Parts: sequence; C-alpha cells; structure tokens
Amino acid sequence: MSEELHVRTLQAGDFDKGFLSVLGHLTTVGDVTREMFEEQVRRRDAVGGYHTVVIEDGGRIIATASMVVELKFIHGCSKVGHIEDVVVDPGYRGKRLGLKLIEALIAAARADGCYKVILDCAEGNVSFYEKAGLVRKEVQMVRYLDR
Amino acid sequence: MSEELHVRTLQAGDFDKGFLSVLGHLTTVGDVTREMFEEQVRRRDAVGGYHTVVIEDGGRIIATASMVVELKFIHGCSKVGHIEDVVVDPGYRGKRLGLKLIEALIAAARADGCYKVILDCAEGNVSFYEKAGLVRKEVQMVRYLDR
Ligand SMILES: CC(C)(COP(=O)(O)OP(=O)(O)OC[C@H]1O[C@@H](n2cnc3c(N)ncnc32)[C@H](O)[C@@H]1OP(=O)(O)O)[C@@H](O)C(=O)NCCC(=O)NCCS
Ligand SMILES: CC(C)(COP(=O)(O)OP(=O)(O)OC[C@H]1O[C@@H](n2cnc3c(N)ncnc32)[C@H](O)[C@@H]1OP(=O)(O)O)[C@@H](O)C(=O)NCCC(=O)NCCS
Repeated sequence: MSEELHVRTLQAGDFDKGFLSVLGHLTTVGDVTREMFEEQVRRRDAVGGYHTVVIEDGGRIIATASMVVELKFIHGCSKVGHIEDVVVDPGYRGKRLGLKLIEALIAAARADGCYKVILDCAEGNVSFYEKAGLVRKEVQMVRYLDR
Repeated sequence: MSEELHVRTLQAGDFDKGFLSVLGHLTTVGDVTREMFEEQVRRRDAVGGYHTVVIEDGGRIIATASMVVELKFIHGCSKVGHIEDVVVDPGYRGKRLGLKLIEALIAAARADGCYKVILDCAEGNVSFYEKAGLVRKEVQMVRYLDR
C-alpha cells in the first residue's frame, strides 16, 4: 500500500479499475455491463445530489462509499444525506480508509447544507460508525418487493 | 370524516391546505414560506424520483408520506425506495390512513422498479410498519451537523 491514499469522486473510467469488484465485497452486484454502469453514472449526475467517493491504490479501486442528498420540506426545506454502500476491500481493512470515506461524505453533506447524515448498518458495524461520530438512533425496517 | 378518503400526489396548491401543518405533528417544520415550498416542489420535480402522497378531507391535508428513489450500482444497477416523513393528523389516527399511505408508496416503488423499500422509525412504531408488511432489519445511525 502506498504511503497515503486519497479519497476522490467516482469517475466513469472506474469501471476498468474494479469499482464493481469492491462493491462485490458488500453484496450482490450482478451482471452490470460497462454500458449499464456508464448510463447509471450519467443518470445520477443528471439528477444531482449523488456523491460516490472511492480510494484507489495501484490503479485499482479498493474502497468506496455513496451518499444521496434528500430534499425535504421539514426543518425549513432542509436536506438530509443518506450514506449507503460503504465497503473497503478485505485486504485493506483496519487502515482507517473506511473512516476517511465517511469523513469525505460528511464534508460533502455539510457543503450541500444537510442538517444531518443518516445510515443503516448491521449491529457489528455500530462501533465503526461511532468512531466516525455517528450515534445509534432508530430501527431500520425493510420490505423486499418481489416482481 | 367523509366515507372514503383517497391518497393522491402532493400538488403545489397544498400549501394552502395545511400540508405543512400536518408535517408539524411529526417534527419542526420551521418558517417555510409559500415561495420556499413551491421552489422545493419544483426542485424535487426537476430531480425526479420523489413521491409525496397526501390524504385530504374537507379541503385540508390530514396525512402525508414521502419516498425518494435512490439509483444504485449494486443488484444490477437497481433502485431502493427510502420512505420518509410519514404522519397522520392526531384527529385521524387509527383509521388505517397511515397504512393507505405506505401501500401507495410501495405501489410507486414497484412501478419505479425498486427491489426494496426501507425506512427508519422509533421502536414504538415498529408494529405499525409490520402491519404494512415491513420487517425489522438493521440499526439506524445519525450524525447531526452543526454549522
Ligand atoms: C465496515 C468497514 C467499511 C470498515 O472499514 P475499515 O477501513 O476496515 O475501518 P477503519 O480502519 O477506518 O476503522 C476505523 C476504526 O473503527 C474500528 N472498526 C472498524 N470496523 C469495526 C467493526 N466492525 N467493529 C468495531 N470496530 C471497528 C477500527 O478498528 C478503527 O478503530 P481505531 O480508530 O481505534 O483504530 C469494512 O470493515 C467493510 O468494508 N466491511 C464489510 C462491508 C460492510 O459491512 N460495510 C458496511 C455496511 S453498513
Ligand atoms: C404512525 C402513524 C403514521 C400511524 O398512522 P395511523 O393512520 O394512525 O395508523 P393506521 O390506522 O393505518 O394503523 C394500521 C394498523 O397499525 C396499528 N398501529 C398504528 N400505530 C401503531 C403503533 N404506534 N403501535 C402499534 N400499532 C399501531 C393500528 O392499530 C392498525 O392496526 P389494525 O390494522 O390491527 O387495526 C401515526 O400514528 C402518526 O402519524 N404518528 C406520529 C408521527 C410518526 O411517528 N410517524 C412515523 C415516523 S417513522
């Protein structure tokens, strides 16, 4: 691992740097072609409010995290940052890269005028997010939609 | 209360029907002027992926819920519906209006191609969402951003 690894914004070219492979350490990515990836990057850019950060080492993406900024009516038409899909390559864990990703997203949330950031995580990751300054709040609920 | 109350999409004119007052039963709305409200409706429409449903009775909004659809890379560039800001006027609770709102948002999530809907709620509301077919999943964490 190089001396110091930096956080930067996702670029369309990251398809070739294993961006989807690192997401594969979080969950099922499925069969995402270059065209699908580039189309999704374009859609998210067009919409705005999406932030995906990555860390690269030796030409390969080894960590990523995303945030979508929600426009609300409450709190004076304020904004909330939803942090999603945080993952560090298993070979790079425990080097404070996860913390760097969260800090970058929190800085982006502040810059965008969010009054808070929220995320949902497994019980086993609560301590990690506490180190990033988050605290336990409510219960996440889910409904999967079969089609 | 009229015989049967229907769920519809938020309209710009709902500012005059007490849309913000019903949100005030959920949390602090603050000083949102007509201009701020209309601008936020416009911004959300321009962005796309926002669904706000309301129920009206006698010319007054008495219930609302929102959802923002997130564009993801995982699961074959899939989508997730984030349900937010669910509230029924205290005088209208226990009449299955909350359930109607959630069902309308779930139908919208399906139509948009979301593979799941998620939300965060207080422990005391878990049973309500279970009746809407959701199940307990993870832990919500938050960081408030002081400016
Ligand atoms: C969770 C994850 C992103 C953490 O990334 P990481 O780069 O290994 O974490 P960091 O090195 O930045 O950890 C920062 C601090 O949190 C601690 N920490 C990290 N993961 C932890 C965990 N699961 N439980 C307790 N502490 C943890 C670290 O020891 C470190 O503590 P220190 O500051 O005292 O040294 C990473 O383990 C991962 O990708 N896990 C699998 C995917 C996943 O679960 N993502 C989260 C979805 S909600
Ligand atoms: C939570 C809330 C939206 C529910 O709306 P509602 O219209 O009163 O709920 P419904 O009548 O549709 O309830 C459907 C079922 O859930 C039950 N239920 C509703 N709230 C419940 C609660 N807090 N605990 C247990 N059961 C509950 C109802 O009794 C009903 O059961 P039934 O089908 O057996 O008759 C409403 O109470 C509210 O606005 N609360 C304050 C704001 C809030 O907490 N919002 C949620 C933020 S996460």
